[in-house]
Amino acid sequence: MANAIRALAMDAVQQANSGHPGAPMGMADIAVALWNRHLRHNPGNPLWADRDRFVLSNGHGSMLIYALLHLTGYDLPIEQLKAFRQLHSKTPGHPEVGITPGVETTTGPLGQGITNAVGLALAEKLLAKEFNRDGHTIVDHHTYVFLGDGCLMEGISHEACSLAGAWKLNKLVAIYDDNGISIDGQVAPWFADDTARRFEAYGWRVVGPVDGHDVDAVDAAIGLAKTSTDKPTLIIAKTHIGKGSPNRANTAKAHGEPLGAEEIKLTREALGWSHEPFVLPAEVYEAWDAKAAGEAAEKAWDERFDAYATAFPEQAAEFSRRIAGVLPPNFADVAAQAAISAHDKAETVATRKASQIALEAFTAALPELIGGSADLTGSNLTNTKSTPAFRLEEDGSSNGGRHINYGVREFGMAAIMNGLALHGGFIPYGGTFLTFSDYSRNAIRMAALMKQRVIHVFTHDSIGLGEDGPTHQSVEHVSSLRLIPGLDVWRPADTAETAVAWTMAIAHHNRPSVLALSRQNLPYAAKTGQAVDDITKGGYVLSEPAAVGLKKKAQAVIIATGSEVQLALQAQQQLAVAGIAVRVVSMPSTTVFDRQDVRYKKSVLPDGLPRVAVEAGVTDFWWKYGVSAVVGLDTYGESAPANVLFKYFGFTAENVADTVKVAIGEARLK
Amino acid sequence: MANAIRALAMDAVQQANSGHPGAPMGMADIAVALWNRHLRHNPGNPLWADRDRFVLSNGHGSMLIYALLHLTGYDLPIEQLKAFRQLHSKTPGHPEVGITPGVETTTGPLGQGITNAVGLALAEKLLAKEFNRDGHTIVDHHTYVFLGDGCLMEGISHEACSLAGAWKLNKLVAIYDDNGISIDGQVAPWFADDTARRFEAYGWRVVGPVDGHDVDAVDAAIGLAKTSTDKPTLIIAKTHIGKGSPNRANTAKAHGEPLGAEEIKLTREALGWSHEPFVLPAEVYEAWDAKAAGEAAEKAWDERFDAYATAFPEQAAEFSRRIAGVLPPNFADVAAQAAISAHDKAETVATRKASQIALEAFTAALPELIGGSADLTGSNLTNTKSTPAFRLEEDGSSNGGRHINYGVREFGMAAIMNGLALHGGFIPYGGTFLTFSDYSRNAIRMAALMKQRVIHVFTHDSIGLGEDGPTHQSVEHVSSLRLIPGLDVWRPADTAETAVAWTMAIAHHNRPSVLALSRQNLPYAAKTGQAVDDITKGGYVLSEPAAVGLKKKAQAVIIATGSEVQLALQAQQQLAVAGIAVRVVSMPSTTVFDRQDVRYKKSVLPDGLPRVAVEAGVTDFWWKYGVSAVVGLDTYGESAPANVLFKYFGFTAENVADTVKVAIGEARLK
Repeated sequence: MANAIRALAMDAVQQANSGHPGAPMGMADIAVALWNRHLRHNPGNPLWADRDRFVLSNGHGSMLIYALLHLTGYDLPIEQLKAFRQLHSKTPGHPEVGITPGVETTTGPLGQGITNAVGLALAEKLLAKEFNRDGHTIVDHHTYVFLGDGCLMEGISHEACSLAGAWKLNKLVAIYDDNGISIDGQVAPWFADDTARRFEAYGWRVVGPVDGHDVDAVDAAIGLAKTSTDKPTLIIAKTHIGKGSPNRANTAKAHGEPLGAEEIKLTREALGWSHEPFVLPAEVYEAWDAKAAGEAAEKAWDERFDAYATAFPEQAAEFSRRIAGVLPPNFADVAAQAAISAHDKAETVATRKASQIALEAFTAALPELIGGSADLTGSNLTNTKSTPAFRLEEDGSSNGGRHINYGVREFGMAAIMNGLALHGGFIPYGGTFLTFSDYSRNAIRMAALMKQRVIHVFTHDSIGLGEDGPTHQSVEHVSSLRLIPGLDVWRPADTAETAVAWTMAIAHHNRPSVLALSRQNLPYAAKTGQAVDDITKGGYVLSEPAAVGLKKKAQAVIIATGSEVQLALQAQQQLAVAGIAVRVVSMPSTTVFDRQDVRYKKSVLPDGLPRVAVEAGVTDFWWKYGVSAVVGLDTYGESAPANVLFKYFGFTAENVADTVKVAIGEARLK
Repeated sequence: MANAIRALAMDAVQQANSGHPGAPMGMADIAVALWNRHLRHNPGNPLWADRDRFVLSNGHGSMLIYALLHLTGYDLPIEQLKAFRQLHSKTPGHPEVGITPGVETTTGPLGQGITNAVGLALAEKLLAKEFNRDGHTIVDHHTYVFLGDGCLMEGISHEACSLAGAWKLNKLVAIYDDNGISIDGQVAPWFADDTARRFEAYGWRVVGPVDGHDVDAVDAAIGLAKTSTDKPTLIIAKTHIGKGSPNRANTAKAHGEPLGAEEIKLTREALGWSHEPFVLPAEVYEAWDAKAAGEAAEKAWDERFDAYATAFPEQAAEFSRRIAGVLPPNFADVAAQAAISAHDKAETVATRKASQIALEAFTAALPELIGGSADLTGSNLTNTKSTPAFRLEEDGSSNGGRHINYGVREFGMAAIMNGLALHGGFIPYGGTFLTFSDYSRNAIRMAALMKQRVIHVFTHDSIGLGEDGPTHQSVEHVSSLRLIPGLDVWRPADTAETAVAWTMAIAHHNRPSVLALSRQNLPYAAKTGQAVDDITKGGYVLSEPAAVGLKKKAQAVIIATGSEVQLALQAQQQLAVAGIAVRVVSMPSTTVFDRQDVRYKKSVLPDGLPRVAVEAGVTDFWWKYGVSAVVGLDTYGESAPANVLFKYFGFTAENVADTVKVAIGEARLK
């Protein structure tokens, strides 16, 4: 059975002339132990709610999971394995969720798979507490992870595994492919950790080292792991990378390149595997086939769920809704009310506070919202009355809390949120300072690539945070996040825009969102009902010349976002005094605005009118809107009070007005 | 002495009405032990080459180091402490190297200070091996770090400390301010690591816990640490955050806000500190004064260095050159030769290979170049004949190798490189895949903010890497790196451009650089001698219509970078067949081009000529150059062979040519 994996891996990599045979060949026996003897899954329904989750954190070993999915009976025919790494096949170079049935998360960027898995296991713990009832256990599954040296070297593994220990995720089982080889060779000179000791320090149970080529030994280790009541388990399995290849095994060369025709021939001989490439004997398929067992397992669960639904009909309906990722029927009302209420109250608050006000409404209505912060709760304002802190009961179960203290672990938080979203049942959001989005950036990207609804609450969004200085002041971050495909970025200007940003972030089930929020107070921008409605379009006409007493048509457009919208409005007033008519466009989300139809976009930014953009950040991004000038900041900030900085860096109504005058030819460039 | 720190910290924070009193007050006694009894430094010369290095990794406690620098006699008068966190003071919110004498690195983004320190300590180990001679020890200093819970939670601390253990950095001493409090409160629910065990797993010596308020105990622990011959040391010091404040000590409230007038009064009483704010008794200054001892220490070293210079004049001169960061006199020749040789050979190679070719020349000539890779040496091609792998001798000293296997630790690598650069004596460069610049992004930003010469070799720079798929394919990265202020980004098209990119990266002593390099082969772009010269300007005229047989002036300009320059040249040819004259501009570095004078820029991109940009990445960035269209990619890539992908995503000469036709009005948008 293990050799079937080895053969498929080496043959598919050879056929693609690209890929990583070493890990699948080395982990084949471990895979037999887990997938044939423990994993509870149903190839006929990869989305069964209570399936065990499996994560291949060392995603470059993708042929391992493709082989397993094919062999156990998922909808992944041999033709797909033959098309490994070819355009639009279901077998891309690294496993991608949404492309291949049975792949739970996209892996490849090392360390993130194990971190997603911590999120998956946390989701299980939280849902179990929320939905299971005495005598009715509907949430009860394990999360299994394969990982290698690379994942363990990555910093994010520290963040994730430390939290897994603190959270006592006893149903998380990680199997470490301890082969002592990474791309640069034998790891000893650069990776000398006592990994067992390290994980014990995190509060994990460590099993092994076991012989990773002894299926029974790995089987027993997994069995032991499943008995853990209060700790996640790390099974250390000693393996040989590229096992089976006479000349490549135990070498870095086995890692990332095809074995070559000659070595494949020798490997076939060494393994005693005489079958042609992609041809497997029927008894191998039979031994691997998990369809019947999977169907039976799911059927048994269905029966349990039916009994649960009879006893607790409301909870059962709610569970099904949550797992399906469908918003509650009153969501639209809650959202509308949040915007209307913000508009009516017209409060002057920081948008981070506006976010908390909106969150009060949304978290009260949506139990699937699970918040958190990377140790900045009081600054990010991510907590609400409906979201008490997540803590553990005496028995290690969740206390039912819905706000997670992630600690100072931005990247870990982001990738754990990805896991929570992938599991189903939750819409995760989490906060840190916008500058530290740098730390979590690749996990934000991964959420976008995976089309997961994850919401990042990034506060302290500019030099407006003041005295903490340039290390903490975002300058390039809003623009650079806008460049990530599939990510919506919001930088709202006031309470209404913030409420709508939250609405949109929650409503878009297939994309992550970023909310960039101010530390400092921002006045409410007076707006029409139409303007409130148009916030959902990402950019809209906030104020026409008539609002400042001019009867003529606009001679220019000022586009502004977030804290600079007030400057634009002040500039509009100053210009009106000089008889210059200006339209102010608020653009809380360029990514959303860009998706509107051309007619709408031209109605907001009419052809021929000079445009000036204002944002307390780098200028490069704004030229795409055909602006004549950008009032921005292409250097780092400084440490000083916010009002001093805004003036120092030219973020004044006067400077905006002067810039508009130059743009329309009423003044010359100084 | 400790109370002087406490008073200065609480008073300065109060005066600024902003800042973090908790850490300085909690670590004041530790500071006495280290700064008064161990730290070998000279306040009169903060740049003394063999000084001990001190890093405040928990940079929010900046008033601690400002107080220490002031008290021990650095050029930081009390007026500067009174101007804490004010515009252009020498006491910004977080410590910034280059602003404040005695600050070795800019800290604030947690986890990076300890990582910089690993780089500082590595530099010491490497320089000691390279320059010390029997009986002549000119490099022999310690690196001390203060850090808190936040740094230890951050993933990067895992990467850095794992490497410090593997590298046996016995002169690295970290003191952990173990106060059990972070911003969200008592850390136990989210930070339950057995930190001693964790660091033992890394191969560190762990001392303590000691009472962090017992100066003698901390003094003894540091003394013990200094005896370590083969391990870095972590001293765990139990402290009370905000120590001295009757009502705020041991609470998260002490962390990040002023104590308030009333609590300061109570604290003064509790500490028995009756002096006015910013007024210190003479005996306190006397006790702290380190000027005489520092001068004597440096003088003793000067004498040792003089003896060394007598015995080894060449090495002494070289050491002085290296520490001064001055390039060798033959650098210009080597650089010119590298470009000329590339031009003459006109080889078709991947730019990652072109980079290795250039590096062969530069590493041979510049012993300060210290390379490395995050476990992708064979892919990044960062190693050369002159840079054998860094390894340890039996006695733990360096083998003199100059290529570092950082392991799979991108962020750690980047921040360690920052430390190497900050130490002096080295120009560090390191490689990974461009996509994983996301992992190291904040350290790249920090290098730019600190104006450090650190060079990032990011290979596999687009969909051109092929089968590894979207997780590994950069799409937004080149553009998003261009947004980081103070960072030069190069995406060269061929061997000559790559050689020049290296030249510029090495020559710019006050900025970091990124080289984005192709995995795939790229043909040499035929160019004039003038064009070769103009590469240093970041963008230049690569090919005029005459080159493809047209006598008329260009009707349009194609701007291209990296692997797409060849497409631009092909399109130019195709358009010539249709009688359309096009200029091709190669723009290997927009950041460098943007710094040229207007006249040069207009000579390359003349007013009035339609422009089309071509880059296998997101399009948003290019509009700043007034283009009519961008041939780019605003989605993620796919897993498939590179040639298939280029065609699939429209990166063909035909599509570029068609886009130009539309731009000049010779065709309509399809």
